[in-house]
Amino acid sequence: MAPINENYAKLPGNYLFSTVAQKVEAYRKANPDADIIRLGIGDVTKPLAPAIISALHSAVDEMGKAETFRGYAPDGGYPFLREVIAENDYRAKGCDISPDEIFVSDGAKSDSAHIQEIFGKDARIAVSDPVYPVYVDSNAFAGRCGSYNNEAQRWDRVVYMPCTAENGFSPEPPKEEADLIYICSPNNPTGVAMKKDALQRFVDHANRTGAVILYDAAYEAYIQEDDVPHSIYECEGAGTCAIELRSFSKNAGFTGLRLGFAVIPKALVRGGVSLNAVWSRFQGSSFNGAPYIVQRAGEAVYSPEGKAQLKEQIEGYRANAKILLDGLKSAGYEVYGGVNSPYVWLRTPGGMSSWEFFDRLLEKANIVGTPGSGFGPCGEGYFRLTAFGTPENSVRAMERIAKVRL
Amino acid sequence: MAPINENYAKLPGNYLFSTVAQKVEAYRKANPDADIIRLGIGDVTKPLAPAIISALHSAVDEMGKAETFRGYAPDGGYPFLREVIAENDYRAKGCDISPDEIFVSDGAKSDSAHIQEIFGKDARIAVSDPVYPVYVDSNAFAGRCGSYNNEAQRWDRVVYMPCTAENGFSPEPPKEEADLIYICSPNNPTGVAMKKDALQRFVDHANRTGAVILYDAAYEAYIQEDDVPHSIYECEGAGTCAIELRSFSKNAGFTGLRLGFAVIPKALVRGGVSLNAVWSRFQGSSFNGAPYIVQRAGEAVYSPEGKAQLKEQIEGYRANAKILLDGLKSAGYEVYGGVNSPYVWLRTPGGMSSWEFFDRLLEKANIVGTPGSGFGPCGEGYFRLTAFGTPENSVRAMERIAKVRL
Repeated sequence: MAPINENYAKLPGNYLFSTVAQKVEAYRKANPDADIIRLGIGDVTKPLAPAIISALHSAVDEMGKAETFRGYAPDGGYPFLREVIAENDYRAKGCDISPDEIFVSDGAKSDSAHIQEIFGKDARIAVSDPVYPVYVDSNAFAGRCGSYNNEAQRWDRVVYMPCTAENGFSPEPPKEEADLIYICSPNNPTGVAMKKDALQRFVDHANRTGAVILYDAAYEAYIQEDDVPHSIYECEGAGTCAIELRSFSKNAGFTGLRLGFAVIPKALVRGGVSLNAVWSRFQGSSFNGAPYIVQRAGEAVYSPEGKAQLKEQIEGYRANAKILLDGLKSAGYEVYGGVNSPYVWLRTPGGMSSWEFFDRLLEKANIVGTPGSGFGPCGEGYFRLTAFGTPENSVRAMERIAKVRL
Repeated sequence: MAPINENYAKLPGNYLFSTVAQKVEAYRKANPDADIIRLGIGDVTKPLAPAIISALHSAVDEMGKAETFRGYAPDGGYPFLREVIAENDYRAKGCDISPDEIFVSDGAKSDSAHIQEIFGKDARIAVSDPVYPVYVDSNAFAGRCGSYNNEAQRWDRVVYMPCTAENGFSPEPPKEEADLIYICSPNNPTGVAMKKDALQRFVDHANRTGAVILYDAAYEAYIQEDDVPHSIYECEGAGTCAIELRSFSKNAGFTGLRLGFAVIPKALVRGGVSLNAVWSRFQGSSFNGAPYIVQRAGEAVYSPEGKAQLKEQIEGYRANAKILLDGLKSAGYEVYGGVNSPYVWLRTPGGMSSWEFFDRLLEKANIVGTPGSGFGPCGEGYFRLTAFGTPENSVRAMERIAKVRL
């Protein structure tokens, strides 16, 4: 009898965003005329930039001719893409990262979920709390999280690093033993980015203890403040303790196009084993690369036209973030994030639970957001809104929130 | 100290095709003028069909306009694609498979590698021998294969189901206990497809023992003989014991575009748990879907124009297979496969080892093939050539083989 992965039964509920989608769909069916504004899932709404569309069309044409057709991509991604990434995202910012330390993927979600597979079964994980649910879920599936305590909303073998209003949503290195430390900065969902000195403390901690930091920088393009690093490799010594995960979803609107990459420096070695080599073997055995046409689209992100068009696109989303921040503040909400990030994080009024606020906001204002508790126990009592809607909808959402009492 | 997955150290050598690529690259560097013909990796060479190119361009245009832009795809794939798959690949062939039993992915390699994650750590696997290496490699990474014995070229906890000339390359259900039974038919690398009655014996075996069959039908489009099933669901009772993996790589030339799907019937339940539900949760937490434009390209595969164009494309590859079969036979080789498959499987002459033949064929004829031993212990003494080259190269390769003594 084929045994099912026993950890599946330990997982609480559904994947957060699937649950949100189901609830919204049920509401929509019951209220077909409701004018729902979706500021829930962190999905972009602006069309792909012209430079990217043009690169896609050219690559599609290449695939239609025998002389230029491309089959399986080289392991790790096409050199043309790995090279522009290394140059623009790293060397230009003083980080010594070479193309063969970059592994192109179909997105940071896949990398976030699979990177744990190169580590031992007994590795103990630490996560920012709240944070993007995939880090914990993937480790729970792999059996590293122990048991889930429904009341405490915690796994008993996970080290939670609280990010609350009290510590400015910037975590400190864990006091408990941890082998894998997941950090997302700018953080999803709080919208708060770590300053360089705070991140340096993690790097020093990891180099001292032998832990590996899994640094998710998917929202890097939203960073505006000078003392916030764009890459963990801006911190001294990160090359011997950190893996960085990046995405094209939020800086270039690739949520529906799927492209990301992992950076694993060759200097990152544990127990005599190169993590770059292990990931290379793992990825070579389980993945056949992102589509050629999408890798060409990724290349266009770094072209002069692409850069200019995407700067404008991101400024548009930033303007939405400001609309949300200002609107919520003037409606009396306690609100965070939204400066170095497309996410705005609000405290639910009157000690309401996150899901209760979700239901009320959907029913009374027809606005979809994401309950903070879905991101971890310290997210309870908070709520996430995203700046990825249209400017019109961002304004309309704030008008509604100003009017209703939730 | 972050522990590395201990199973990594147990893996023998590199991923087969990476090793082949490295050897060819080394030879090419040492012999820059060599006119190398690549019949090694199973990669297609014909450009994408016009109907697919046209669908890609249209979808790219949609992504460039706000009204038609698409972000994250729905979990499991777009309904437009899941529906044409269910209709054309299943219902039209009398198999009762519904769209919500189909999970669209970025290719059968990813599915082949990740499907094991929904099963328990102690599940014992059985594999056709020889077979596509990903099934064993992914389970070895997950720690299910025991230790690798270099001399025997076997994992001590894997049940091997021999496919040799003696049994017509058609395996029998394992006599030893096995929870997960991997079958690839038409088989990669032998090029031999299982007849319906032989496959029915596996289905009956699995329903009797509670095992789950993981059926890789990536080469289904090459089936020509009437008594060979296109889907395992043509066998009675397969809905309660089998997962089918499909690919667009070989039927539509998507190796560089990346699209596939897994079929998990809702009736497939083990220990009271629906495998459809577990995979849905797993995929929802670790994957954000194949690109919208690629899913539209997949839809075009089922259009009348797409079908006609792809029929012609596959006939071209089949003609290559015949060139290889005939050429090898007249050169005195013992050769198999190539009828229901793009792969031709030859016995190395004079008891030569597979890798020795690889080296000689590369050096003396400048032809790249794949050593049979890379696919499992029973592949030793065999060698794979693929029909995915151009007709010209297939002819030239056979001319060279006729002339050289290997």
